[in-house]
Amino acid sequence: MSTASMAADSKAAPVFVRETREGPVYRITLANAAARNALSRAAMDEISAALTRAAEDADARVVVIGHEGPAFSAGHDLKEMQAARRSADGGRAFYDALFAQCSDMMMQVVRCPKPVIAEVDGVASAAGCQLVASCDLAYASETSRFATPGVNIGLFCSTPMVALTRNVARKHAMEMLLTGEMIGADEAQAIGLLNRAVPQADLSATVRRLAETIASKSPLTLKTGKEAFYVQAEMGLADAYAYTARVMAENMMARDANEGIGAFVEKRPPTWTGS
Amino acid sequence: MSTASMAADSKAAPVFVRETREGPVYRITLANAAARNALSRAAMDEISAALTRAAEDADARVVVIGHEGPAFSAGHDLKEMQAARRSADGGRAFYDALFAQCSDMMMQVVRCPKPVIAEVDGVASAAGCQLVASCDLAYASETSRFATPGVNIGLFCSTPMVALTRNVARKHAMEMLLTGEMIGADEAQAIGLLNRAVPQADLSATVRRLAETIASKSPLTLKTGKEAFYVQAEMGLADAYAYTARVMAENMMARDANEGIGAFVEKRPPTWTGS
Amino acid sequence: MSTASMAADSKAAPVFVRETREGPVYRITLANAAARNALSRAAMDEISAALTRAAEDADARVVVIGHEGPAFSAGHDLKEMQAARRSADGGRAFYDALFAQCSDMMMQVVRCPKPVIAEVDGVASAAGCQLVASCDLAYASETSRFATPGVNIGLFCSTPMVALTRNVARKHAMEMLLTGEMIGADEAQAIGLLNRAVPQADLSATVRRLAETIASKSPLTLKTGKEAFYVQAEMGLADAYAYTARVMAENMMARDANEGIGAFVEKRPPTWTGS
Repeated sequence: MSTASMAADSKAAPVFVRETREGPVYRITLANAAARNALSRAAMDEISAALTRAAEDADARVVVIGHEGPAFSAGHDLKEMQAARRSADGGRAFYDALFAQCSDMMMQVVRCPKPVIAEVDGVASAAGCQLVASCDLAYASETSRFATPGVNIGLFCSTPMVALTRNVARKHAMEMLLTGEMIGADEAQAIGLLNRAVPQADLSATVRRLAETIASKSPLTLKTGKEAFYVQAEMGLADAYAYTARVMAENMMARDANEGIGAFVEKRPPTWTGS
Repeated sequence: MSTASMAADSKAAPVFVRETREGPVYRITLANAAARNALSRAAMDEISAALTRAAEDADARVVVIGHEGPAFSAGHDLKEMQAARRSADGGRAFYDALFAQCSDMMMQVVRCPKPVIAEVDGVASAAGCQLVASCDLAYASETSRFATPGVNIGLFCSTPMVALTRNVARKHAMEMLLTGEMIGADEAQAIGLLNRAVPQADLSATVRRLAETIASKSPLTLKTGKEAFYVQAEMGLADAYAYTARVMAENMMARDANEGIGAFVEKRPPTWTGS
Repeated sequence: MSTASMAADSKAAPVFVRETREGPVYRITLANAAARNALSRAAMDEISAALTRAAEDADARVVVIGHEGPAFSAGHDLKEMQAARRSADGGRAFYDALFAQCSDMMMQVVRCPKPVIAEVDGVASAAGCQLVASCDLAYASETSRFATPGVNIGLFCSTPMVALTRNVARKHAMEMLLTGEMIGADEAQAIGLLNRAVPQADLSATVRRLAETIASKSPLTLKTGKEAFYVQAEMGLADAYAYTARVMAENMMARDANEGIGAFVEKRPPTWTGS
């Protein structure tokens, strides 16, 4: 049974997420277009479950997060958030749980042992923009737009800015956060939120090419490198070198490094075993 | 009595700073054009006092730092610094106090509960460039120029580089610091020191539009978000998420978030109370 | 005896490094073109020794690292690395020593009391790209190319990414690291890995002009500032200001600051004594 049908079986409507795997590429499609892929608690449950399945699927080497409809994701589900105010605590417990869950989901993207690519053809705002920023790579159609507009509704995009400020320079992040205004894909590329904005007609081919390129590498090497990337990013220089020097020495002892370097020296294609 | 006349009354010539408030925009104008707005100890006293008044003015929601004359600021007052050498300690106590005061003033900009925008139409160098970098946002005329030229006079721009390196990439910062050469506004925009360089004729309208846009937001939300921005920037990812998730839950409990989200859902303009 | 002839005398073939000093510019030329300037253990020994001589040469104020042949450096010596697998421990001790040595050499560039400029006219990949990223400044011909291609051979560029991610934004670094693909000099400039890409015919003049500009500054000031640059970069804002305020006060007490500021005020050229 494919993971796609698993997801379909285990969930009544609305469907928040569709999952497919084509060869080594595990695609998670945000599929609640009518709700602009709002990140309700149920939607985030589904996305997290899909990320877990993608991580555990031995045949999946790269994860792509795409979407149906005009929004990649418009962020949190505001109606669900307002409804929680009717609780005896005014919603406090719900909000604590909501933002913790959302942060956990974003860190799950970062901690996923496989590269995660955002494919955006529309609007990504608030926590939706955060999800783009949290992915390892991001590509978008030129007509896509991005915003952290919480300031417009009295709720500063404080968790989205964690991911945003780890991608773009301070003044650019501040302008998005303080004005709440949309930026176009070209500007998003210029400030580093996107790897590249491409014509809409080229988007899926661009992402497919990238995903297949990355999927051709050793999955052990990708896992090793991605983990080390985020760990060393939080260290001072000397600690980062001490840590990554150990990572590389360990990497050299793996079968795939022996195979990869041997194949390179012998001018033949490598055969990865992921060990 | 307006803050402008307060400032004028409380100070004999030279006037270092003029203050005005137009609606929600508190404008601090560096006004010692003849001295290229040198940051003497007295000038910094005045700027700090103005920043305190701006922070405390209940009707001010955004602060703009502009200038009269051809220089936004040329940095420290070199004659004052050389004069201090005649002290018994060769100036050491003066320099300790000077750089501590300057750093405190720069951190005051960062810690101001209201967004601070630099409006530059001329030269910003050394600590003047640092002040631009310390503002949350910065806009300049296309003919403006920026430098950290301390290296030319044997005094490396070590405190300016704290702000500079938190805005621009390392190699760009290093080139400015090691060569001491001026860069134009276009380059300053390209490397992230400015949000935008605009034609001189458009500068004040650009800043006014930005300031008014930001001033239309909830002041509580702006204060919450700006503070969280700089706090989370110094944290690792997991800590930053734990912290900002708490900030957002707290933000949701504020009246302005209820009002803002309610207004959005009901498609009406919000009315902020700042609580 | 010149440092160049010293190096030539002390080393049998192959020659990994040539050293020359023209006035205040100490040039280290990676000279093993036939091996694409692979960073074998012996080559790194030579580069480190050259960096030490450059640091200790009282007449050298700036260091330029250039190269002979089509590669600035292709990174580690893969044949040497594979040969080490024949050891009883499968190479583990060799790899530990190799990556520690390489990291030490990169940190030696960062810790060198003199600015270090990379001059690239060709390919810089893996640890070669890391060396470019580790230099304070980097200029390249427009036809130069850069990559962190370890992922192609099962060995993620984990130590190179330490330097890379301290220069360029996350998504750009990730694309280089995960795809292993070459980027051109224009893109390297756009993402911050290079200060500037210039026509090949202009490269040596560009670097010479930069080097001479920097060499005209006080060597004490350059040393003070470069050290403070990397120290404060790892601190939070308040600590960074407390630290650099002390650095600047100390800098003011030096003879060269008195001379430099005095010369500026008196509109005459300064005479540095480096004290």
